[in-house]
Amino acid sequence: MRVLGVDPGLTRCGVGVVEGVPGRPCTLVAYYVVHTDPEDELPLRLLHLDRSLTDLVAEHRPDAVAVERVFSQHNVRTVMGTAQASGIAVLAGARAGLPVQTYTPSEVKAAVTGSGQADKAQMTMMVTRLLRLPEPPRPADAADALALAICHVWRGGTRSKLAAAAERARGGRTR
Amino acid sequence: MRVLGVDPGLTRCGVGVVEGVPGRPCTLVAYYVVHTDPEDELPLRLLHLDRSLTDLVAEHRPDAVAVERVFSQHNVRTVMGTAQASGIAVLAGARAGLPVQTYTPSEVKAAVTGSGQADKAQMTMMVTRLLRLPEPPRPADAADALALAICHVWRGGTRSKLAAAAERARGGRTR
Repeated sequence: MRVLGVDPGLTRCGVGVVEGVPGRPCTLVAYYVVHTDPEDELPLRLLHLDRSLTDLVAEHRPDAVAVERVFSQHNVRTVMGTAQASGIAVLAGARAGLPVQTYTPSEVKAAVTGSGQADKAQMTMMVTRLLRLPEPPRPADAADALALAICHVWRGGTRSKLAAAAERARGGRTR
Repeated sequence: MRVLGVDPGLTRCGVGVVEGVPGRPCTLVAYYVVHTDPEDELPLRLLHLDRSLTDLVAEHRPDAVAVERVFSQHNVRTVMGTAQASGIAVLAGARAGLPVQTYTPSEVKAAVTGSGQADKAQMTMMVTRLLRLPEPPRPADAADALALAICHVWRGGTRSKLAAAAERARGGRTR
């Protein structure tokens, strides 16, 4: 399965695409950081982010989208922008008709490093190793997005297939 | 000018459309509350909100969109959903090529009641009176959205025209 992971941010939004199956090493497809200019007005920034994510979803045709869940405990100064960016990211996947799963930072850390308390350096090192990259992805936003995608292949991919099967078995909901 | 105001919320999102010019009473065009089911998954909810707002913008063809600015000081339990909903609302206006302005709750209160500390009952009463409605709009989310639209007609409408003129005079930015 191919998964597009998004580490949401208004100024820098990491996007990572990987392919793989649960329990096996994933393969890197591509990674990006979408930038928007803090000097620009919010509508322009959200529009640029929406178009960029929509284009990347169309280009890479993932089977699913994984987005980091945002908490209000984060940096108060930037959390509103991050929350808005995460809404745009979830919407971009949903508009393409894809399953979208959100993960907490600890879930991603635990999936990729075995510890929910792993630091940024450890995460970047594991992503580099797991994808057998010659060097760490730069900047770090891209590494986080790749970790989200790996996490979904290993955890959520299975979970959402089970959920979909359960839904079909129940007769499904069409709304 | 016709303004579509949005009081963003994930479970209930108020939308109000008014027409008017600065300093004169506005006229009610329509109001709505878009509901999404808290039992549904986030992607479905954001998709429903996006489609509803996009349809309302297409139906009413406003000259501008006004959205309440969300602060992290709000109710921590719901603030992330509200921030995501506000991002979707700003995006819906921007995608339609419309100017989108955000206002703080105090700015709206001050514009409509003369006091930035007005309570909900006072706001609803003033919206009812200003739009010469036979009874208060229900539910209150709709009244807040109408207040935002009135605020923009009276304040932001002028401001964004001035801003646009200043921009043209400077040679404009095309990004």
